[in-house]
Amino acid sequence: MGGPGEIVTAFIAAVEAKDLDTALGLVTDDVSYENVPIAPLVGKPAMRATLDTFLKSATRVEWRTLRQVVSDNVVINERLDRFQIGDGWLELPIAGFFEITDKGLISVWRDYFDMSTYARQFSALTKPTVT
Amino acid sequence: MGGPGEIVTAFIAAVEAKDLDTALGLVTDDVSYENVPIAPLVGKPAMRATLDTFLKSATRVEWRTLRQVVSDNVVINERLDRFQIGDGWLELPIAGFFEITDKGLISVWRDYFDMSTYARQFSALTKPTVT
Repeated sequence: MGGPGEIVTAFIAAVEAKDLDTALGLVTDDVSYENVPIAPLVGKPAMRATLDTFLKSATRVEWRTLRQVVSDNVVINERLDRFQIGDGWLELPIAGFFEITDKGLISVWRDYFDMSTYARQFSALTKPTVT
Repeated sequence: MGGPGEIVTAFIAAVEAKDLDTALGLVTDDVSYENVPIAPLVGKPAMRATLDTFLKSATRVEWRTLRQVVSDNVVINERLDRFQIGDGWLELPIAGFFEITDKGLISVWRDYFDMSTYARQFSALTKPTVT
């Protein structure tokens, strides 16, 4: 088990690999998963369902960590979360805050982002082609 | 002059006091002011104009810093930016990233937030009352 920064890095890598079993193995049972524009979710089943929805529409997932800062048990990163959908890439700038327990599990994951930046691109990339 | 954390705290306090002269005195001439859902702005005049727009509609401004982390010359905070407009308060959750120069000036200010969370409340608080 690494330090808080390594745990978050491993978690992000598991999400990119769409390996939800590994990702969920790195969080507490009562994890609080907070996409700030939406209501917080609590618990692994809710996190799994939401991540599955985010990931299943993408053929590839690449979350670039642009900066990561660790302060005690808190890990903060700036990311560019990228999803390949159809012929294009959806790109979403994110500020993520993670709290890590003494046992090395993520108990809070809070992402700040602009929902319309996501929705606008998702809509454009999934729009039926007029032939 | 304090450390990077104190400089950001003083900057936030000046904004809350709507004291833009003091706030602008704490940033570099070529400051990059980035509201992530919108295009970045460069320079003091652009920052002043945008802050003025944000602030002039509010009778009171209260930006609550919920967490602040300093790592070298980087300051990161989670805030609840509150604006009293008419009879109500607009509340916007924000993740802020600041870069501080060796001379103690803010050269980058990047805020992550959900634009529709702002716009929806602003619209409700400024809607003409039907009598």
